[in-house]
Amino acid sequence: MRSNYADDSLALHTDLYQINMAESYWADGVHNRKAVFEIYFRKLPFGNGYAIFAGLERILAYLHDFHFSDSDIAYLREELGYQDDFLAYLKDIRFTGDVYSMVEGELVFANEPIIRIEAPLVEAQLIETALLNIVNYQTLIATKASRIKQIIKNEAAMEFGTRRAHEMDAAIWGTRAAFIGGFASTSNVRAGKLFNIPVSGTHAHALVQAYKNDYDAFHAYAKRHRDCVFLVDTYNTLKSGVPTAIKVAKELGDKINFVGIRLDSGDIAFLSKEARRMLDEAGFPNAKIIVSNDLDEYTILNLKAQDAKVDVWGIGTKLITAYDQPALGAVYKMVAIENKEGLLADTIKISANAEKVTTPGLKHVYRIIDKENGKAEGDYITLQDENPATEERIKMFHPVHTFVSKFVTNFEAKNLHQHVIQKGEIIYDNPTLEEMRNYAAENLNLLWDEYKRAMNPEEYPVDLSQKCWDNKMRNIQEASEMVSHL
Amino acid sequence: MRSNYADDSLALHTDLYQINMAESYWADGVHNRKAVFEIYFRKLPFGNGYAIFAGLERILAYLHDFHFSDSDIAYLREELGYQDDFLAYLKDIRFTGDVYSMVEGELVFANEPIIRIEAPLVEAQLIETALLNIVNYQTLIATKASRIKQIIKNEAAMEFGTRRAHEMDAAIWGTRAAFIGGFASTSNVRAGKLFNIPVSGTHAHALVQAYKNDYDAFHAYAKRHRDCVFLVDTYNTLKSGVPTAIKVAKELGDKINFVGIRLDSGDIAFLSKEARRMLDEAGFPNAKIIVSNDLDEYTILNLKAQDAKVDVWGIGTKLITAYDQPALGAVYKMVAIENKEGLLADTIKISANAEKVTTPGLKHVYRIIDKENGKAEGDYITLQDENPATEERIKMFHPVHTFVSKFVTNFEAKNLHQHVIQKGEIIYDNPTLEEMRNYAAENLNLLWDEYKRAMNPEEYPVDLSQKCWDNKMRNIQEASEMVSHL
Repeated sequence: MRSNYADDSLALHTDLYQINMAESYWADGVHNRKAVFEIYFRKLPFGNGYAIFAGLERILAYLHDFHFSDSDIAYLREELGYQDDFLAYLKDIRFTGDVYSMVEGELVFANEPIIRIEAPLVEAQLIETALLNIVNYQTLIATKASRIKQIIKNEAAMEFGTRRAHEMDAAIWGTRAAFIGGFASTSNVRAGKLFNIPVSGTHAHALVQAYKNDYDAFHAYAKRHRDCVFLVDTYNTLKSGVPTAIKVAKELGDKINFVGIRLDSGDIAFLSKEARRMLDEAGFPNAKIIVSNDLDEYTILNLKAQDAKVDVWGIGTKLITAYDQPALGAVYKMVAIENKEGLLADTIKISANAEKVTTPGLKHVYRIIDKENGKAEGDYITLQDENPATEERIKMFHPVHTFVSKFVTNFEAKNLHQHVIQKGEIIYDNPTLEEMRNYAAENLNLLWDEYKRAMNPEEYPVDLSQKCWDNKMRNIQEASEMVSHL
Repeated sequence: MRSNYADDSLALHTDLYQINMAESYWADGVHNRKAVFEIYFRKLPFGNGYAIFAGLERILAYLHDFHFSDSDIAYLREELGYQDDFLAYLKDIRFTGDVYSMVEGELVFANEPIIRIEAPLVEAQLIETALLNIVNYQTLIATKASRIKQIIKNEAAMEFGTRRAHEMDAAIWGTRAAFIGGFASTSNVRAGKLFNIPVSGTHAHALVQAYKNDYDAFHAYAKRHRDCVFLVDTYNTLKSGVPTAIKVAKELGDKINFVGIRLDSGDIAFLSKEARRMLDEAGFPNAKIIVSNDLDEYTILNLKAQDAKVDVWGIGTKLITAYDQPALGAVYKMVAIENKEGLLADTIKISANAEKVTTPGLKHVYRIIDKENGKAEGDYITLQDENPATEERIKMFHPVHTFVSKFVTNFEAKNLHQHVIQKGEIIYDNPTLEEMRNYAAENLNLLWDEYKRAMNPEEYPVDLSQKCWDNKMRNIQEASEMVSHL
């Protein structure tokens, strides 16, 4: 390992082919042609009806700092054999383009541009991998968290998953995304420090093992901590843990704030009901029951169906790893590039797989909101020169089954993209994490419940404007003619 | 976000409860009692017959650097309300304990200690979360990589998953683990730089889109790169991509080294066979076919069954996220602690779930290797004062179904733990990554094929010595008597 470079930069956090392409563009003199790339995913994760975008703050910092350090250049020269002329050029590259992005906490759906990059081709190319790395993970976790929170409803959710996260960055950026998605706190102290997230946690089994019994352990804990949650399942939950927690709480009285107990194993439905009864009978009706143990939206739904008595949910592995679908497939596709004449021309990627054909052109995304009921009618993707806000009536039709259509009137058309970087300079102030979280929660009110249910949600409409659709068809036609002429 | 602390340390990369427990231990004066903790997992991932341990190098660096920085202490005081006396103590904590660990690339099985920590209670407690975070992910990915490599056999496997990894650390540490597990290269340039892993990659669809056709794109690429792999599926694989690659290769002749083509979509079985035929007929029998597109061990097995013509496999999402089981459940359990008399006493954690009951006592793990055929008979877990190497015959029995037993003679007993940290000082030289990878590959020769097959492998024996077993039973008995006396 030679990982202790003082000047470790993230510019090399990219796939090798990006650098190879950068070299080709540069050698061929096309590197400064303006290119337009979009980030989007093709399918919502977890069978959910929406996703929550997260990752912008990290992306802005990455783009702002983008540069190849001395040791990066030395590595490319000495180990990978790149030539000095290209490296001299690479050394001075900074990100000088424009970025239009949804904000963190925004509701996002399949096949709509989350972020649009307008930059010199070479710059747009070099940043692809890192941007996808960030967007894919953080959006995945914010979405999973929101999905779990929809089931939990009003109780608090705590993120507990650091030990099962995919290394350290995942632990801290994942828990930040979970907070945006609606979680109340994290157990990771560093995340608390870095992102100003509330931190929660009490003690583990090891404390009880160290004292060899619940009684001494709880007393030792209470000596120094006023707010006490006792973990009750080290030896025997109902015979030792809960009665001992009650005993210690009574003995200490006002000397502590007996917040409650935590259950971390066993039959949570049964144990929580028994523990609730014991706490109530002992005169602690306000003592909370906190549970954990490989929970996800399905186990929580089941526990609720069994009338489990739970006040706070601690969620780890299944959230922080997005266990049932650990990857969001967001992609980064070129939709236009400046031609020899200096004009922006559409580009397309054809695929035998219809949903993999890209939608060409620089596009805008509008959320169409019914002014009467305040609900979203769908998202509406247009070419650059269209503005649905000035139209009285728009026709929305399904991008695959085009015969499914509707006319919408009396709407607000909200442009979902903010201009966040202009000529390489950040022109956007990140809101606080709390504000992002509130924004996500408010956004969910735009959606009919049918889009938000955990199983088999209705498909939220994401439609192309007629002009955007026609443009796509024309591009497909041209590409297939090109191939047929070979 | 306030993430730009110049003195960001990893000591806060822990669960809050560890710090709360540290405070209790310290306030109660038990913080310096020697404690013994073990890291192990209870179940092999992916239904695989073995796992490959990875993560030690990162752990050694973490433990060596362990300290709370000024901004950490300030955060704990100002935001979390810890008191000055405890913080003054915390400020000076370093890791002063001993660590015994398997080495990276070691074969590891369920329920055997991978790492043993012997340290003052407070130190052993504070490091738990980070150690699990590291071991769980890196071991998971090394294992997944090895499992995939078992199916691939002699062809090369390239790791391509950065864009789908769970944030940046996962991308680089994951690809390092994949290399240990048998992968040949990574696409992540930073991982190449940091860990000295071979880096591979050519160009993406964007290059072809930028030039609007395969021909100009391949020529632009070839202008500056001698080794050429052309990506052939941007518009039409068999009508445009492959014929154009052949055409460009013929035109350029010796000016380039035409390595081959890459297929990234469509019916890989069909396309690879057709492409192979076209390449062969065009006089390029040595041109390689590189494939990618959501591959894992199952799709690869199927492609091989269909006689797909593949020379190199590019594997991304399914490897780097461990898609079918994205978490290894390694735990960190206290097995002994110094008592008031200064003697090490066993500790146990009881559970209604039999496999969650811990095995008390400081233990050693031996791999029992048959001297005649060089194959492993199983792993043998003993208490500290046992040494199977000095015994002529040992009895190995199943830790759950104890009636299943065998006697083993003429064996070598290899102690799997190395002393890697002594009184806080690293006393172990990390091998090169290449050496770790070779070690893993050699280790696999110890296993009968039945343990290595991808589906329904035989269960490799991990047995307790009679003494270790009797000791566990005694501890269970004592714990249940304690509970029944409450």
